[in-house]
Amino acid sequence: MDPRQRKDVLRNITYGLYVTTTAQGEAVAAAGVSWLSQCSFEPPLVMMALRKDGALCALLRRSGRGVVHILGEGQAAVAKSFFGPTKHEAGTINGQPYKLEEGQPVLGAFPWYFHFEVREWVDRGDHSIAVAAVTGAHATGEATNPLALRDTSWSYGG
Amino acid sequence: MDPRQRKDVLRNITYGLYVTTTAQGEAVAAAGVSWLSQCSFEPPLVMMALRKDGALCALLRRSGRGVVHILGEGQAAVAKSFFGPTKHEAGTINGQPYKLEEGQPVLGAFPWYFHFEVREWVDRGDHSIAVAAVTGAHATGEATNPLALRDTSWSYGG
Repeated sequence: MDPRQRKDVLRNITYGLYVTTTAQGEAVAAAGVSWLSQCSFEPPLVMMALRKDGALCALLRRSGRGVVHILGEGQAAVAKSFFGPTKHEAGTINGQPYKLEEGQPVLGAFPWYFHFEVREWVDRGDHSIAVAAVTGAHATGEATNPLALRDTSWSYGG
Repeated sequence: MDPRQRKDVLRNITYGLYVTTTAQGEAVAAAGVSWLSQCSFEPPLVMMALRKDGALCALLRRSGRGVVHILGEGQAAVAKSFFGPTKHEAGTINGQPYKLEEGQPVLGAFPWYFHFEVREWVDRGDHSIAVAAVTGAHATGEATNPLALRDTSWSYGG
């Protein structure tokens, strides 16, 4: 298989953009995620693939719980701050204010978020798949459309 | 968790639209799929969630291999024929011409497709997750953009 052709094809899979957070004791991690999809209606489950070498994946394996924030259109700049290392300072993560809800960090910037609990890890490649139950879902009330990855200057896939 | 609120939130996850096919001996199955994402660069893997009660899921468990077709914009009408039962007749699946490639059905209608081999099944909800290696990827040459589920009148999620 030609790697370039593979990339050209796989980049046509459609993605959104999300920020996933988790906390365990004093430790907090957050990262931008695109490889995420629902995978069951009943019970409500999602599957998301996280870089194995990332701090989010490592901490989520310990905490087993976290929050997925769904970005709205126009929020690419906010997302960008979550592509690098997590900076946790006095009530902010990577400069974004948050509050703890059931012990997990909820960022104030995003139009929708949901809490999840990991049910199973699947390790087959350079990302770990977390299969997780959705345990609470919230809209923050601002009417908008979700941000698609292709509406940004970034791609992730191939 | 309020089911309506959950639906309102989870429907903001961004999806594409795909048609997945598989063949085993004389049997052929095909279905529209939206819950699909890449989940590893090296090796190249995808994860897709398939209705447990569907014919595609049942046959794919036996064949272990298949083809994902990525829809281009304007192809919603073609996709619709794959939402119902598989009708396999003389060189067509649900009215769409196909050829066999490595024993698997490749539909002629779509701008990109890739072959896959299932590496692992994960069963946690009302869909089965197939974690699969991408074994070949092809563009059919027509320049277009991929179809996003939200560009159609359908939704799948919540």
